[in-house]
Amino acid sequence: MPKISQRGEEMPQSPIRKLAPLANAAKERGIKVYHLNIGQPDLPTPQVAIDAIHNIDMKVLEYSPSQGYKHYREKLVGYYKTYNINVTAEDIIITSGGSEAVLFAFLSCLNPGDEIIVPEPAYANYMAFAIAAGAKIRTIATTIDEGFSLPKVEKFEELINEHTRAILICNPNNPTGYLYTRREMNQIRDLVKKYDLYLFSDEVYREFIYTGSPYISAFHLDGIEDNVVLIDSVSKRYSECGIRIGALITKNEEVRKAVMKFCQARLSPPLIGQVAAEASLDAPEEYSREVYDEYVERRKCLIDGLNRIPGVYSPVPMGAFYTVAQLPVDDSEKFCAWCLSDFNYEGETVMTAPAAGFYTTPGSGRNQVRIAYVLKKEDLIRALFLLAKALEAYPGRTN
Amino acid sequence: MPKISQRGEEMPQSPIRKLAPLANAAKERGIKVYHLNIGQPDLPTPQVAIDAIHNIDMKVLEYSPSQGYKHYREKLVGYYKTYNINVTAEDIIITSGGSEAVLFAFLSCLNPGDEIIVPEPAYANYMAFAIAAGAKIRTIATTIDEGFSLPKVEKFEELINEHTRAILICNPNNPTGYLYTRREMNQIRDLVKKYDLYLFSDEVYREFIYTGSPYISAFHLDGIEDNVVLIDSVSKRYSECGIRIGALITKNEEVRKAVMKFCQARLSPPLIGQVAAEASLDAPEEYSREVYDEYVERRKCLIDGLNRIPGVYSPVPMGAFYTVAQLPVDDSEKFCAWCLSDFNYEGETVMTAPAAGFYTTPGSGRNQVRIAYVLKKEDLIRALFLLAKALEAYPGRTN
Repeated sequence: MPKISQRGEEMPQSPIRKLAPLANAAKERGIKVYHLNIGQPDLPTPQVAIDAIHNIDMKVLEYSPSQGYKHYREKLVGYYKTYNINVTAEDIIITSGGSEAVLFAFLSCLNPGDEIIVPEPAYANYMAFAIAAGAKIRTIATTIDEGFSLPKVEKFEELINEHTRAILICNPNNPTGYLYTRREMNQIRDLVKKYDLYLFSDEVYREFIYTGSPYISAFHLDGIEDNVVLIDSVSKRYSECGIRIGALITKNEEVRKAVMKFCQARLSPPLIGQVAAEASLDAPEEYSREVYDEYVERRKCLIDGLNRIPGVYSPVPMGAFYTVAQLPVDDSEKFCAWCLSDFNYEGETVMTAPAAGFYTTPGSGRNQVRIAYVLKKEDLIRALFLLAKALEAYPGRTN
Repeated sequence: MPKISQRGEEMPQSPIRKLAPLANAAKERGIKVYHLNIGQPDLPTPQVAIDAIHNIDMKVLEYSPSQGYKHYREKLVGYYKTYNINVTAEDIIITSGGSEAVLFAFLSCLNPGDEIIVPEPAYANYMAFAIAAGAKIRTIATTIDEGFSLPKVEKFEELINEHTRAILICNPNNPTGYLYTRREMNQIRDLVKKYDLYLFSDEVYREFIYTGSPYISAFHLDGIEDNVVLIDSVSKRYSECGIRIGALITKNEEVRKAVMKFCQARLSPPLIGQVAAEASLDAPEEYSREVYDEYVERRKCLIDGLNRIPGVYSPVPMGAFYTVAQLPVDDSEKFCAWCLSDFNYEGETVMTAPAAGFYTTPGSGRNQVRIAYVLKKEDLIRALFLLAKALEAYPGRTN
């Protein structure tokens, strides 16, 4: 029997995935599980998108262009303009979710052995795509005590060597909800410029910023236009995770040409997803406002609730719909598993994501979990209550 | 400005893609182009699939499972059974098109530097995915004079060395339409067994076999169950190229585990595509019969027509909907370009795919083109007429 590849071995399995069988087993025992562990919003997809799917009038569901439909890309230009991001339809490449954009960015820009600097905790799948491309993620620590703000420029420079080829940020951040400040973004710009690095900027949560602070896109930074590769997705913006429509946007023509070769090899992005995503751009203003208002309330409800539980601490996330909270537990992987296998209160329990999967530094995030506020308020309140009850009963409690 | 990656440079651009601007320019000059160059069937998608899309009743277009919907995979088990392919729902992983199945198979099974033996001419995108995975394609020549049958086992063994990890076949074949015989499949099985290789078997054209000869799936071969990775797609079967639904099927649990890690990193395959693909399994028998009968007619029309043009020769393809034909030209890349840029007859011309893109051996296929019979019969007849006229007028004609 032939062996699998080394990268197949090395690919991390996210701690959430490891917990999935426990969650299923709990459900089979009749226990209701409140899912705070995944970024699957429960909010409705815009009706215009559903209508567009219902009204599809095609006899043949044929290939769409490898770059994505031109009319969709042209319409996106206007969307980005509302965020003061000035790009052309040519700069935009439609991908199968933000995931494919990350993978193709890595494959096109990085050679095996090249290094990417990523502030941690970070979205776990970046590590997976780096392994797929043979690149190495070098993480730079941010801490819950400092609210996950970026460390000083010197800390970055300590990591930079001849293999360093890129900085990767997620802004607003998954998993921390942190929003990079202008000062921090300027610091990144200076580093990118000084060392001629790529800046991969995952900005899929730009709709979800809850403070008065400005959203600084990588495309707002002067003098590094050719270094920026923006990763985008409609998944969170319109509650359309399933349609797999994302985008890779860059003004660097060489990068675009290379990415397009990967796009042509995989022929085309999903056709019906593009129809839905394009229609979503016509969603009424109330849609975005209602979604936004809902998250504002949930965020307040969650963060207040968390910080009221004895021994629990969460910074106030500025964006996205996650927070990383510290729990009074010995090991959050054990705690999350225990909540599913050994605990229930009135036949209910709660599932959160152990934060260790978002760190590469061993031991980091061991008493932290990522919590997604993608449930409606009354469920969030119940989930918080269950979390408090679980922490009271958990045998590995630390204080 | 940072440099793109070496694989970004090395990725081949298919000759068809290079011709696309010429085709567009011709159309802008008002010339009608008959497309024999791509495998985009013009036949309708099954109505049950379109209906299923129209009837989607979801408020949230949420992530589907990374492995694909279980009910879809369970239903596929019955489909495969009709081809005497005995697999379980667990063996099946739903992918974003057959393309993603090829990429994930390579990433999961092959290390950088590993070699895959592929009979050429071959589907050009295999080379692209091999570059993405850092693997090397070693081609073994098949010739138009021998109807593209496989060479003797010794020819394979000449290529096998310590880096050889897999054999890749496409059966029925794109671009040649060749169908491997039982003798040939047994020969492949013996090689796979003897050298403990993976057998990647792309069988997306199994519906399109026009001779009485049996279809031998890689899964019909005894004793190599753990070596086989089957690549599949609904694109051609149901004229659903745009929905991006494929599958990777293997009984090798280690491979499945590795592939699933890549699948989890990209979260999920397209949701609405799966709805359409699942519904298509209920397409009435007449659908498949009508599609099949149509291709039978087109094949006869095309092959007879080609062999009647002076200087042109095409073997009779046994399956798929392509043929590789030999033309009396100096260089088919030049000829195909010339048809678009310099030729028209009564305001019409024809586009075919230069075969060089399907070979890695330099100089091979230089006087060959791939022709897809995906147009209706009267258009095929007109396209053949235009091809004959073009060959009469082409300045680089060789005999």
